[in-house]
Amino acid sequence: MTQDSVTRLERWMARRILETCGDPRIRLVLWNGEELRCSDAPPLGRVVFRDRRLMLDLALHPDLGLPNAYQDGRLEIEGDLPTALKLFFAREPRRSAAKWLRDEWELLRRRSRSHARARENVHHHYDLGNDFYAQWLDERMAYTCAYFPTRTASLEEAQLAKMEHVARKVWLRPGERVVEAGCGWGSLALHMARHHGVYVTAYNVSAEQVAYGREQARAQGLSDRVEFRLADYREIEGSYDAFVSVGMLEHVGEENYRALGRVIDRCLAPHGRGLIHSIGRVQRRPMDPWIVRNIFPGSYSPTLEEMVGILAPFDFAVIDVEDLRLHYEKTLEHWLERFEKQAAAVEKRFGARFVRTWRLYLAGSIASFHVGNLQLWQLVFHRGRERELPWNRAHLYARAG
Amino acid sequence: MTQDSVTRLERWMARRILETCGDPRIRLVLWNGEELRCSDAPPLGRVVFRDRRLMLDLALHPDLGLPNAYQDGRLEIEGDLPTALKLFFAREPRRSAAKWLRDEWELLRRRSRSHARARENVHHHYDLGNDFYAQWLDERMAYTCAYFPTRTASLEEAQLAKMEHVARKVWLRPGERVVEAGCGWGSLALHMARHHGVYVTAYNVSAEQVAYGREQARAQGLSDRVEFRLADYREIEGSYDAFVSVGMLEHVGEENYRALGRVIDRCLAPHGRGLIHSIGRVQRRPMDPWIVRNIFPGSYSPTLEEMVGILAPFDFAVIDVEDLRLHYEKTLEHWLERFEKQAAAVEKRFGARFVRTWRLYLAGSIASFHVGNLQLWQLVFHRGRERELPWNRAHLYARAG
Repeated sequence: MTQDSVTRLERWMARRILETCGDPRIRLVLWNGEELRCSDAPPLGRVVFRDRRLMLDLALHPDLGLPNAYQDGRLEIEGDLPTALKLFFAREPRRSAAKWLRDEWELLRRRSRSHARARENVHHHYDLGNDFYAQWLDERMAYTCAYFPTRTASLEEAQLAKMEHVARKVWLRPGERVVEAGCGWGSLALHMARHHGVYVTAYNVSAEQVAYGREQARAQGLSDRVEFRLADYREIEGSYDAFVSVGMLEHVGEENYRALGRVIDRCLAPHGRGLIHSIGRVQRRPMDPWIVRNIFPGSYSPTLEEMVGILAPFDFAVIDVEDLRLHYEKTLEHWLERFEKQAAAVEKRFGARFVRTWRLYLAGSIASFHVGNLQLWQLVFHRGRERELPWNRAHLYARAG
Repeated sequence: MTQDSVTRLERWMARRILETCGDPRIRLVLWNGEELRCSDAPPLGRVVFRDRRLMLDLALHPDLGLPNAYQDGRLEIEGDLPTALKLFFAREPRRSAAKWLRDEWELLRRRSRSHARARENVHHHYDLGNDFYAQWLDERMAYTCAYFPTRTASLEEAQLAKMEHVARKVWLRPGERVVEAGCGWGSLALHMARHHGVYVTAYNVSAEQVAYGREQARAQGLSDRVEFRLADYREIEGSYDAFVSVGMLEHVGEENYRALGRVIDRCLAPHGRGLIHSIGRVQRRPMDPWIVRNIFPGSYSPTLEEMVGILAPFDFAVIDVEDLRLHYEKTLEHWLERFEKQAAAVEKRFGARFVRTWRLYLAGSIASFHVGNLQLWQLVFHRGRERELPWNRAHLYARAG
């Protein structure tokens, strides 16, 4: 048996993989050049298995085999990567009872209780260097779902529109105090202070991001209005008129939802209101193991029930929920496009494997939002007895002014 | 001891009642003319206990004593009834563990599983006669929360705006098939058929309402587009592009939520979407026992978690939630005002006790929405993998056209 030959067992396995994918427009090319197809439909993508070791990996690690191989360059996807992944993701298999049990076990097992561990998890992803993110994020360094006024708006416009959307949803009034839990590089905090005249206290456990935010505040003359604190959301102190958290809940972990609810209840004034913006899922599932291992350790995407449940023990009424799933797909398309333009520079600094890892993460996320494996929910709430509410949501759709 | 005298125990009890209410602007007048007050603040309402029997009732039935007495005319509230009730409701007491247990027991106890019982429950309220409701509802006979374009809009305008809001939320397209579960007198079904060119199948277990709806469809030339079926939501058959249910969930009972979810899953086409509109509560609580006994037997107001939970077992993504609590308060204000104008006619037909019962129900509901004891949620969902969605919610706020 030479390196180039394909055994009957290997061919049978390869066919199974092709069938699992379910779409006849994908071709599978084996290491000897042999091409497997389900039909003669014009191909939308070709998956190339570069060596036979892949088959063993897949048998041993059904969840991780393919993405690991892609990362290492032992598997290549020819054609548009997001398009090919959309075809792969389009058919989510029905969960067996055994799979459900494994999922629940997985959900139990993954914990990131301690502050130290939370810090480490965030460090893993966000402290790759501000330079790295500056290469492919928008000019304000917003690393969360944008809100596209139109499908053809630029990423810069869409990130600005997102910040305005969030600020309007919690109907900020000049002079109010806002706390932001998980503020990234600070763009939303700075936007709210500048355009809505509020005082913002912004929490973040990433030292690099906080340093960047402080520098921006100084440069924009907003240091007296925006205070960045290098601390965990559980360390939030003080009383605020509004609570906002955009893209932090994914890193909180469901075992800390109760604590997060208590923090919100403790820090919100009697007339206070808040917004939580998070990736979520329709069905309760563990995170994709490849994403947890390579991209976001300790992360979890909640169901809407779980998000609402954070507020349920307290006297908060949820008054608005919006799903921005298609906007996240578009945001990621912009990121991937910009990332590809910088791929050579990134490879020079971090290596080829890093580039392939991030390419797969961004393209896979596009595909996940595209097919509905992931949602993006913004949830607005206020103290249940409050009456100083906007009469309807028309103000969210009024022209800026 | 004469009928007129007040014992020390009775006076102590009366004081306790006054303190429970918590607002110094309420005065309590006993049957001998004696007036109790917490402070010298100008009174906003006077509660008159006409006889001492009331004190015993209150001791025996803490939840029902006051409303029962009001119904019977043994208790009078002078001043504006909704205003006085808002003061009463403003301070919801903290629940003790014992009260929580009683609440959970109560939630378990109340069941209305059978179709026959559901029919009976609905009959109790809705078959009082179309004439009765026509006396104080809007011209289209909509008996659910309206949506006021402005705070000063008329009830007619607001009910029309509500129907349009609902139709837009499920982005109806001409020629589509819509199923409505619990259609009342049919105004929404007729509106969708007339203004959105869809075919509606509308279910209702109230014979009087269905007869009225059919008559309206004939009169408006819509009989070929709107079919009214005298049947329970569990009997829904066929496949539809959209599911809407406005004001039915309150009568479904939480023990039937699973069944309702299955019905929606069964009847919605792969690209289908839906809307559920229901009164809800921030905290899980049994219904007010007086309301269940006198107005809505078998009713239950869910939490948002419970509403979302109806859809959770299926592949539905909730894409929009809106709380219209303040709009229901205003709707009820219109109803009460119209009801009072017809009170003499209603009393002639149904008697004084009936008028007082309905007055308390309407005024109490105003107060409940006012203080935030009740919410009104509209929840929009679609199949989780669907991509043919509106890009944002701006179309809900565009001028009609």
